[in-house]
Amino acid sequence: MKIFMDEDFLLETETARHLYHDFAKQMPIIDYHCHLVPKEIYEDQQYDNITQVWLGADHYKWRQMRSNGTEETLVTGDASDYEKFIAWTRTLEMAIGNPLYHWSHLELKRFFGYEGYLCEETADEVWNLTEKALKGGLSARKMIEMSNVEVICTTDDPTDSLEWHKKLHEDATFKTKVYPAWRPDKAIHIEKADYPDYLDKLAEASGIAIRSFEDLMDALAVRMDYFAANGCTVSDHGLEYVMYVPAAAEEVNRIFTKRLNRVTLTEKEIHQFKTSCMIELGKRYAEKNWVMQLHYGVQRDLNTAVFRKLGPDAGIDAINGYASAAEMGRFLNALAENGKLPKTILYSLDPNDNASIETVMGCFQDSSSVGKIQHGSAWWFNDHKSGMEAHMTSLASLGLLGNFIGMLTDSRSFLSYTRHEYFRRIMCNLIGNWVENGEYPADDRLLSRIVKGISYENAKQYFEF
Amino acid sequence: MKIFMDEDFLLETETARHLYHDFAKQMPIIDYHCHLVPKEIYEDQQYDNITQVWLGADHYKWRQMRSNGTEETLVTGDASDYEKFIAWTRTLEMAIGNPLYHWSHLELKRFFGYEGYLCEETADEVWNLTEKALKGGLSARKMIEMSNVEVICTTDDPTDSLEWHKKLHEDATFKTKVYPAWRPDKAIHIEKADYPDYLDKLAEASGIAIRSFEDLMDALAVRMDYFAANGCTVSDHGLEYVMYVPAAAEEVNRIFTKRLNRVTLTEKEIHQFKTSCMIELGKRYAEKNWVMQLHYGVQRDLNTAVFRKLGPDAGIDAINGYASAAEMGRFLNALAENGKLPKTILYSLDPNDNASIETVMGCFQDSSSVGKIQHGSAWWFNDHKSGMEAHMTSLASLGLLGNFIGMLTDSRSFLSYTRHEYFRRIMCNLIGNWVENGEYPADDRLLSRIVKGISYENAKQYFEF
Amino acid sequence: MKIFMDEDFLLETETARHLYHDFAKQMPIIDYHCHLVPKEIYEDQQYDNITQVWLGADHYKWRQMRSNGTEETLVTGDASDYEKFIAWTRTLEMAIGNPLYHWSHLELKRFFGYEGYLCEETADEVWNLTEKALKGGLSARKMIEMSNVEVICTTDDPTDSLEWHKKLHEDATFKTKVYPAWRPDKAIHIEKADYPDYLDKLAEASGIAIRSFEDLMDALAVRMDYFAANGCTVSDHGLEYVMYVPAAAEEVNRIFTKRLNRVTLTEKEIHQFKTSCMIELGKRYAEKNWVMQLHYGVQRDLNTAVFRKLGPDAGIDAINGYASAAEMGRFLNALAENGKLPKTILYSLDPNDNASIETVMGCFQDSSSVGKIQHGSAWWFNDHKSGMEAHMTSLASLGLLGNFIGMLTDSRSFLSYTRHEYFRRIMCNLIGNWVENGEYPADDRLLSRIVKGISYENAKQYFEF
Repeated sequence: MKIFMDEDFLLETETARHLYHDFAKQMPIIDYHCHLVPKEIYEDQQYDNITQVWLGADHYKWRQMRSNGTEETLVTGDASDYEKFIAWTRTLEMAIGNPLYHWSHLELKRFFGYEGYLCEETADEVWNLTEKALKGGLSARKMIEMSNVEVICTTDDPTDSLEWHKKLHEDATFKTKVYPAWRPDKAIHIEKADYPDYLDKLAEASGIAIRSFEDLMDALAVRMDYFAANGCTVSDHGLEYVMYVPAAAEEVNRIFTKRLNRVTLTEKEIHQFKTSCMIELGKRYAEKNWVMQLHYGVQRDLNTAVFRKLGPDAGIDAINGYASAAEMGRFLNALAENGKLPKTILYSLDPNDNASIETVMGCFQDSSSVGKIQHGSAWWFNDHKSGMEAHMTSLASLGLLGNFIGMLTDSRSFLSYTRHEYFRRIMCNLIGNWVENGEYPADDRLLSRIVKGISYENAKQYFEF
Repeated sequence: MKIFMDEDFLLETETARHLYHDFAKQMPIIDYHCHLVPKEIYEDQQYDNITQVWLGADHYKWRQMRSNGTEETLVTGDASDYEKFIAWTRTLEMAIGNPLYHWSHLELKRFFGYEGYLCEETADEVWNLTEKALKGGLSARKMIEMSNVEVICTTDDPTDSLEWHKKLHEDATFKTKVYPAWRPDKAIHIEKADYPDYLDKLAEASGIAIRSFEDLMDALAVRMDYFAANGCTVSDHGLEYVMYVPAAAEEVNRIFTKRLNRVTLTEKEIHQFKTSCMIELGKRYAEKNWVMQLHYGVQRDLNTAVFRKLGPDAGIDAINGYASAAEMGRFLNALAENGKLPKTILYSLDPNDNASIETVMGCFQDSSSVGKIQHGSAWWFNDHKSGMEAHMTSLASLGLLGNFIGMLTDSRSFLSYTRHEYFRRIMCNLIGNWVENGEYPADDRLLSRIVKGISYENAKQYFEF
Repeated sequence: MKIFMDEDFLLETETARHLYHDFAKQMPIIDYHCHLVPKEIYEDQQYDNITQVWLGADHYKWRQMRSNGTEETLVTGDASDYEKFIAWTRTLEMAIGNPLYHWSHLELKRFFGYEGYLCEETADEVWNLTEKALKGGLSARKMIEMSNVEVICTTDDPTDSLEWHKKLHEDATFKTKVYPAWRPDKAIHIEKADYPDYLDKLAEASGIAIRSFEDLMDALAVRMDYFAANGCTVSDHGLEYVMYVPAAAEEVNRIFTKRLNRVTLTEKEIHQFKTSCMIELGKRYAEKNWVMQLHYGVQRDLNTAVFRKLGPDAGIDAINGYASAAEMGRFLNALAENGKLPKTILYSLDPNDNASIETVMGCFQDSSSVGKIQHGSAWWFNDHKSGMEAHMTSLASLGLLGNFIGMLTDSRSFLSYTRHEYFRRIMCNLIGNWVENGEYPADDRLLSRIVKGISYENAKQYFEF
């Protein structure tokens, strides 16, 4: 029996251990997509106790606590931090096979040096030990530094002043590069009640009055230039699915004007408008050599009662079964046909989409970049051992795993860098198994290139950081 | 090489063997969903030979026999029981990797003490041995008793008199509790030709004339009280998919009246009616603290020629690819929004639905019950080793496996209790592998709670038997 | 560690090695579906170098080269054969876990005796060695002969003269049987621009003027007789999905006439027409005892820019997520209801369809043939280790793996016979694992029948070659 989560955690073979310890482990982290708050980085956020780091904003954990029958007061309510920690501990005991079990313990090991396991018997020990470390200087920047993070890309609205990114850029004491990433969802989600208000905000930020679709695109272009000047090279979109319902320019303008006049749009009009936005933005990404990230397949805020109480990101999101690979392919084709398909990363929340994404992807690769179209690392609900193994096995079977740009945290927590370690162990184990089984040569020149590539080099080259 | 199906069958590691033999094996069975006939239990059904038990009503086996090119006369026709047994034996030889191979042999081992394997050479030996045991007193009750079954929930129509349940309740010689489960499909499937006839039957059983949707619900409420008085705490629904097409009360009444007047309904009207039925019933389940089971994703009676000859349950059913997790989520939300979401168990026949079910489920958990919304054990066509492993791995990755209420037989045969053994072995092996691989601590306090929980304790607590 | 791709490649257990080396390996090959060109067989195609064999028409490889950022000139352009080979070598290094890695090396081993692995360091060695062998007589017929191929079924249009099949039939020096397979896609795809031109061609080939749907069917019947007279017993269809939109005969004629008059058809009319074609052809297949192969779930030529440059089969195809098992079932039922369902092999490009296909299949099995309805071997994008394991595990779980008719190459290359070896190793390993794990008896009588059956005997019996 292997010891619980020791240094060879998840590394089942000699080759896996070699690949991880000699190649993967020492590579820096490029966290090209996350939800960290730049202000918290700049101000070097401090914490009083582990509950603040673990349960403050982590809706992954909230869901599991509710699933364990925990009262909401102990989840997001006004119970004490210590009580919440105990409730989480009880939940964790039942979370066998869940990534939260492994993430939590990797965090305890790497940041707090705790080598035991958290359960009711050890809860106080862990509480005290983590409190001591957090009060003793384990701050946001310290966690980033301990994790050997070279680049962070946050997620930012086009109207954001990027004030904190600028300050971070000017702060010579902090070595990690922190870049903004462009997430213009609010400019695209025309069906939302507060859309006109958002346009006002965008008009102000860009200095362009927005009375037509062209104005909207011009305003976004101004902000894209501003983002680019602040180091941005990555965009990101949250879409219900990747639709392709093309419409003529005048039709799109008609739809936009209709919305400005507060007339309710049809479903088709909404899809036409969004398609046009994505096509226009996609072209500009290609022109700017930005990467286009598409996150889709989510149904958000499914539980109305909880949403009313807690708002978004409350642990009430689910997989939306509908995502047509055919339609996604037609969208990519519309850009490719005009020579304007940017580097693109596809993430679907539905694990059934793995193979179809990879086959669509293969239709649009070209020599403008190595691995130009990428199937993003197993995302959100799929970010666990079997999900990552399924993703990488499918990617290897249908594409070139060697060119995969690898892991990102997608997280709101500074402790989440251990997810890169988790990913690298799983990746090295998978590759190690193939080598041990005679399916790929035990050739260190080839293997180190592949393993270091997926851990770090491929992302560095792809994003051109 | 492991010996064929010995005491350590499917238990690949030391830990797996420990978990099964020391924790799982001795737990009683709670079979909270099956299709056993209460009359057969009460009258203690006897059998002349193994064909009567194995092939009398088992459409799982019929399908495979046809797949082996067997003449229908040897499947459901008038060939002799012995000839049918030989035809089944020949089929079984080809069924490598099929759960029927394992179920059949577990049944031979546990009920008949046969330690060999069934093939043409051993067919007569098995025929004689099983005949002797069956004629020597291996009756329905004996099989239940040998299987350590604490609770059985059958599947019953609202108009059922529950006569045999009452008799069983009064029979002090029989220790296993046998409860009815409420399956009101016939009251909901408004599109069926015999729907008006069914309403007559329901009116008679309830003493309520049914002229409106309210009458229908009142009649069902009367019968629910009757079922509750006879120990029922579980409902069950067979749905094409979990739809959500809400309609105002008067609209639903209009649809119902239209049907009473023998006017054909539109697809939308059918969906509106069914949605309203499910919402109304769901509320009542919540009020009564009943569990709501939703079985969906089936296309039944697909082969018209066979259906004409043999009727339903003839081995001609298949997975219906359409089941929208988004729509299912909206249905659950409609109940939750009014604080009327009962404990719910979701079963889809489509194995691609695993992850989406589990993510929807996670949106509706709350403190009213531990593991309030459950993803039911791998159902019907998925009830095999790889299906159960996929289900439990996905459930562990996305939820709390430790709170899973575990196995049910869903069977018409008294021999099928070995399916609980099969499930427990697979579950212990899965968990054992995680522990052996250092992914969960080798802590007997935690592991015994999890393993005993999934085998027995969780169901007992969940159903409040 | 196992040695890279040695004689025990993919055979992880003693039993697997026994099954492969003693049972599977020596069986001849029946390649019942491929895209080899009969003229090339008859004329015994020669090659100057490995690039001509590997990269001449293999869009599987083209996709991966583009994915590696290779310039198109090195993929399908006018770079030298040597330069293309080097570009492919660089691509292959990144293809860890991809079937092309294994196929390429199996081809180097079996046809060229090369026991190393291809990478930049060995590229020249491989180039020279393969050039020598190819120039030294390693021709098309030689490759077929070395592969122990008993039967080849090509893929042929109804208007084909079958000239080369006839010549092959008359050539006593060539032992392998080469039969045509009937692929009437062009007669069915009524929406294509060149459909009327195709009808002219078909009219000429059949001697029947085509003015109605009946004429069309009559013309096809004439050609079917011609194909049958030339040894054809297998049909094949490439469908977007298996649709079932029935229409009355006169309606179908109206649609057909409308198309002849160059009026654009509605989507529904197209589906009605295609359904009627498939129903009519299906009946005739049943009458002729032909096998009906249905390949579906593809979206072809997704990248318009590449399609304009290179035409079809350019590596720009993908999985089409839409394929309704319910609708496919209704199509099969329409034939079965009239006693006219032929032996049928179902292939979907979407790996998510495995279980639903197998459950639909089980509804239509009967005694007219052993394993009458088959789930075809993991097709195209699924033809890799994990895809084949998933297919066979699902097939075993839901049907009778022992009756599976096994592998086909589906290839345009004479080197691809090693795919049968790849398949057989994976199949023996899977079965070997079950036996080693005590899940099936270690009984050589049963196992040799199953393994030889899946490798060769089942196909021979099924197709009645």
